Amino acid sequence: MNDELIIGLMSGTSVDGIDAALVEIRATNNSVEAELKAFLVHPYPPALRQRIFNLFEDQAGALRLTCELNFEIGREFAHAVLALLKQASISSANVRVIGSHGQTVYHIPPLMAASEQHTASTLQIGEASIIAQMTGIPTVSDFRTADMAAGGNGAPLITFADYHLLRDKTKGRVVQNIGGIGNCTLLPANCALADVLAFDTGPGNMVIDGLVVRMTDGREACDRDAHIATSGAVDQRLLKDLLAHPYFSAPPPKTTGRELFGLAYVDQLRAQAKERRISDADLVTTATALTAESILHAYRDFVFSRMRVDEVILGGGGAQNPFLVELLRRGLPEQIQLLTHEDVGINSDAKEAIGFALLGWARLHDIPGNVPSATGASHQVLLGKIY
Amino acid sequence: MNDELIIGLMSGTSVDGIDAALVEIRATNNSVEAELKAFLVHPYPPALRQRIFNLFEDQAGALRLTCELNFEIGREFAHAVLALLKQASISSANVRVIGSHGQTVYHIPPLMAASEQHTASTLQIGEASIIAQMTGIPTVSDFRTADMAAGGNGAPLITFADYHLLRDKTKGRVVQNIGGIGNCTLLPANCALADVLAFDTGPGNMVIDGLVVRMTDGREACDRDAHIATSGAVDQRLLKDLLAHPYFSAPPPKTTGRELFGLAYVDQLRAQAKERRISDADLVTTATALTAESILHAYRDFVFSRMRVDEVILGGGGAQNPFLVELLRRGLPEQIQLLTHEDVGINSDAKEAIGFALLGWARLHDIPGNVPSATGASHQVLLGKIY
Repeated sequence: MNDELIIGLMSGTSVDGIDAALVEIRATNNSVEAELKAFLVHPYPPALRQRIFNLFEDQAGALRLTCELNFEIGREFAHAVLALLKQASISSANVRVIGSHGQTVYHIPPLMAASEQHTASTLQIGEASIIAQMTGIPTVSDFRTADMAAGGNGAPLITFADYHLLRDKTKGRVVQNIGGIGNCTLLPANCALADVLAFDTGPGNMVIDGLVVRMTDGREACDRDAHIATSGAVDQRLLKDLLAHPYFSAPPPKTTGRELFGLAYVDQLRAQAKERRISDADLVTTATALTAESILHAYRDFVFSRMRVDEVILGGGGAQNPFLVELLRRGLPEQIQLLTHEDVGINSDAKEAIGFALLGWARLHDIPGNVPSATGASHQVLLGKIY
Repeated sequence: MNDELIIGLMSGTSVDGIDAALVEIRATNNSVEAELKAFLVHPYPPALRQRIFNLFEDQAGALRLTCELNFEIGREFAHAVLALLKQASISSANVRVIGSHGQTVYHIPPLMAASEQHTASTLQIGEASIIAQMTGIPTVSDFRTADMAAGGNGAPLITFADYHLLRDKTKGRVVQNIGGIGNCTLLPANCALADVLAFDTGPGNMVIDGLVVRMTDGREACDRDAHIATSGAVDQRLLKDLLAHPYFSAPPPKTTGRELFGLAYVDQLRAQAKERRISDADLVTTATALTAESILHAYRDFVFSRMRVDEVILGGGGAQNPFLVELLRRGLPEQIQLLTHEDVGINSDAKEAIGFALLGWARLHDIPGNVPSATGASHQVLLGKIY
């Protein structure tokens, strides 16, 4: 195959803006390389962002709003593409396809559906017909539905990009994302796609951020540069109790989220701290240690037995927390290198958008994009509909 | 191109069931032929049908319901396909593609959007990934969005099927559908797609049905076999007043719906009739005459000047109303033949599903499926996303 220019589009649950990546993809028989040519974050207009949050409330009128926002978000995604093309001085005729994740507005994973007697399903909006019409570029959308139709969680989908961009011939790598939740992708040296495993390690920044939000009455959203965590000390007894949570000892594949480590967990944690007379600073330090230790425990219990690890590659907001990184460094065996995405040549801000460029490219060439060992699907399937 | 087996799926706003048609399509340079091989109506399970009507209410929880019903309806559409394949004793491997209209759950045409400051948009659900996964057949869905992205109404889409199935080398034909609304497609002899015009003539059965529902307190849904209409007489003065409605004199292209001729219109009509001491039977007779006369007026004012009409081909529920058909017969110039779809070899019950089989086939071969002179779109576009 020739080199192809592909655009990837992604907007996360925080609804801040649309990540748009222009990627040159070069595929040979055995490898796929993706070079980032341009990247931008296109902010949502405030009024549209407010309408999306209104939709999340799921009140009367939500059906009409879904119908309208599907078109409105499609237009905004198209604007992001047009801005990206302008920035890169590239004509739309040179772009083969757009892979657009869209905006997730509802997601019911299979496990949750089973326990609540609801239908496992997922809904991303941002109409691909609009994106294609406004940009003149064929557009692939709705990547998560096919994986769910095959019995999977519809997530994580980044595993495909991790595999193609980060596996190494000779080094065993673990890609550790620390977003709200911590997630790792295991890439044994010279692995095939079927060898790849991915699972959630537990909380990433979710508990730390939640504590800071509560302690500052919402004035601060996170522990910037670990100012709070470095001013306190770990309460070892509390940390040990927290690590006894059954999630950490459950074997992978496993996924978690706000249901387990959201604000309810944070509030319960604060109540416990008050009882034990643990200071706010010590609590944040302990929560940071919880993230680090849950990752290290997961590696000891489930990773090191499966593969030789030469490098751990950090990504997500947690990679910006110097105290968290230091704890990981100290806890990892010395011979393992701790790197950032940038250390291996990947722009971590752009990575998710690059991932959807890769999935758009995969759909174009009839290559399955899900990794069943990560999503839990019964088999590999093509992801995404082409318009 | 070789003969190809295609399946078309359609469910209308009455949500009674899913029309499924297995069609053999034979294309040459200049013509497309579609032969119906099997047809069935797969009824919705009552609980699912109720959930769809709940969604129409657009109350709190509608977003979650949209997410779930997209998957649940997809499964039901897949069941319809499996039943159809079984009935026809055909393996899924022999079917090239499914064209699935899905279930419309919201539709805001451009004109309505302009007057109400809402976003023109449309939403059909019935997840194509599920249909494809359960049947093993590539599936095309979301036909209406691309036409709207090009500025069109997203409707009517049946024009494409009318053109391919009903145009004639030597005869000028008008295809007159009489559903809730009356709609005609103009097919001049030996016409090209660009010569085709389509527009709504006005009420079809909507006003007649509405009157019967009101008069019988909902015990009857329509004037079966024109029993009521044939027992009354037309009130010519009222008929003349009704025909003065500005919709009838507006030039095509034009579309109408429940907003103009729904229950509000019916209730106003009954109030007028009471004032003028017109009996219930006479009112139904007059309403039936209104449908007939509005069609005949439309032909005189907008059709006969555009083309020579040799045949009018009736379809929809109104073609089953013998009094309405008789009025049309009497009102049309003698040399025009009044036919049914069956007279020209088309199963009218299956026609819409056949239409979406044709549109699925068109998408597969990169042939635009909208007719801009019918939908109002700025140009021809591909319709539908392929999974």
